[in-house]
Amino acid sequence: MRIDELPTPALLVERALLESNLDTMSAALPGTRLRPHVKAHKCSALARRQRANGHPGFTCATIRECEVMAGAGLGEDLLLANEVLDMRRLGALVRSGARVTVAVDSPETVAAAVAGGVRQVLVDVNVGLLRCGCPPQKAGDLADEARRAGLEVRGVMGYEGHLMLVADPADRARKTAEAMALLVSAAADVGGEVISAGGTGTYADNTWATEIQAGSYALMDTAYGAIGHPFGQALSVLGTVVSVAATHAVVDVGLKALGMDHGLPTIADARVRFCSDEHTTFVPETPARVGDRIRVLPAHVDPTVVLHERMHVVDGAEVVETWEVDMRGW
Amino acid sequence: MRIDELPTPALLVERALLESNLDTMSAALPGTRLRPHVKAHKCSALARRQRANGHPGFTCATIRECEVMAGAGLGEDLLLANEVLDMRRLGALVRSGARVTVAVDSPETVAAAVAGGVRQVLVDVNVGLLRCGCPPQKAGDLADEARRAGLEVRGVMGYEGHLMLVADPADRARKTAEAMALLVSAAADVGGEVISAGGTGTYADNTWATEIQAGSYALMDTAYGAIGHPFGQALSVLGTVVSVAATHAVVDVGLKALGMDHGLPTIADARVRFCSDEHTTFVPETPARVGDRIRVLPAHVDPTVVLHERMHVVDGAEVVETWEVDMRGW
Repeated sequence: MRIDELPTPALLVERALLESNLDTMSAALPGTRLRPHVKAHKCSALARRQRANGHPGFTCATIRECEVMAGAGLGEDLLLANEVLDMRRLGALVRSGARVTVAVDSPETVAAAVAGGVRQVLVDVNVGLLRCGCPPQKAGDLADEARRAGLEVRGVMGYEGHLMLVADPADRARKTAEAMALLVSAAADVGGEVISAGGTGTYADNTWATEIQAGSYALMDTAYGAIGHPFGQALSVLGTVVSVAATHAVVDVGLKALGMDHGLPTIADARVRFCSDEHTTFVPETPARVGDRIRVLPAHVDPTVVLHERMHVVDGAEVVETWEVDMRGW
Repeated sequence: MRIDELPTPALLVERALLESNLDTMSAALPGTRLRPHVKAHKCSALARRQRANGHPGFTCATIRECEVMAGAGLGEDLLLANEVLDMRRLGALVRSGARVTVAVDSPETVAAAVAGGVRQVLVDVNVGLLRCGCPPQKAGDLADEARRAGLEVRGVMGYEGHLMLVADPADRARKTAEAMALLVSAAADVGGEVISAGGTGTYADNTWATEIQAGSYALMDTAYGAIGHPFGQALSVLGTVVSVAATHAVVDVGLKALGMDHGLPTIADARVRFCSDEHTTFVPETPARVGDRIRVLPAHVDPTVVLHERMHVVDGAEVVETWEVDMRGW
């Protein structure tokens, strides 16, 4: 199929950029040094490409992601890097043969792992992001409590998410070092072999983690693209110009096709004015025509992908593969 | 089922508020005076309730919405109030017995209607929103062109979307009158019986339109809720508190479960700090506990609904119905 034949809006992935992004990251962080985060693409077909690049373990953000990954034969070493309180569905995955490790940061989540039948945990440590994770100085006690409850504590995780978009490289490196000093200290108290942390923003700075939980690098977005990493923006949303006025033009890609939490999307050679449910109004540098097909670049890849049922891998004018976005929902 | 048993995040609809919202609007705009917009809820079960309240015609924003509505037996009078260029799927609906009217604002969209097999159109007129619609003074010519091409021109539409959230009632009424003066003038040039316009924000101000395209009134959101209409916020997202720290708490409702284009969600008796993919970090007035179930109120209902597979209609502690969000995608 040709790109011109796709109904719009349609999620496009440039094959060459995707392959380059995957290979660049795999060269920097080979094998188990990278635990790709599937929340960024929610696509088991793309995860299979990451597995083929040598990464057996994956990071998940939801139980659904774990289920789909295991169902796709990619359940060799799944980390649910979030706290959950009802782990029965995860326990069922463990009994079916998947390896599932879950983050715990409280007595309640330790008890939930035991009750749900999950046997392996990481102690989630707060390294500065105002979100989950126990205080570093309490990590050892929580690990003891988990072991007393019969769980295997594989180590620690601590996500320095507040540093991902720090643009200045020296500033980012210094702050990453400070955050990881907290995690390394907690790891000494906790024991185990795993120190899981990091993301696309800090993948090159974070030399303390034994594994990096990067996800956005595969598809990328304009927010990450602005801070100078060696990954290209592979993802875009194809739209059709449906209306042209003297002052502006309108493309059929709106806020129901775009993650909006990082702001407006970008259109080449145009100024984006605003997004409506099914439209983006923009001012092109050269006149647009009704029927033109253009690409809209989302500011944030993760919440864009979840709005689409499938992504089309393209090469030039051709659609070479179509992948289901099969990990949506919870 | 009890609400306590629902996995989270889960979309909840308060039955009493929904019923009150539907009845209040139906009393204000009975029968064909209201053409409910399904984009706000994307749920054919909810549309069926609106039909039962006496409204035979519906407004749609996508071809998929038209298809699902027709498939649900609600295709008596569907208006696709957006421009589209490939109308073959709409033509198939017409041949299957649905009545489909589509907006046109250019020679290209008139030609698309003819090519796709859609026989009835409204001329879409720009009444001040920087989006679709032909200039008012060109509407008559476009209607002539459509009739020469064999189409039935039922009238005009013109959406004053830029006025929906004007908070001052007098200011909103005055601006609505100005916008509708443009539409009424165009209607005189175009002919036909339909003047379709309006929304939840202007439903009471817009006395010029023959039918109002309101959608948000059924479920509501905090943005509309702030401007004083007689509709209650029926929609919320149920979450579980998964982590509690000295400074904040975290609920498992994040930006993949919330439309974010109108900003952060609201939590009663708490200050919301920020949203991550699967979390909202908040500061509660009284200490939260891990396992607490709380409701998160989205700032914008339409892009929230599309992130969920289903909505649960609740009454007290009970889930009384579960409705599929069956009009997602395109």
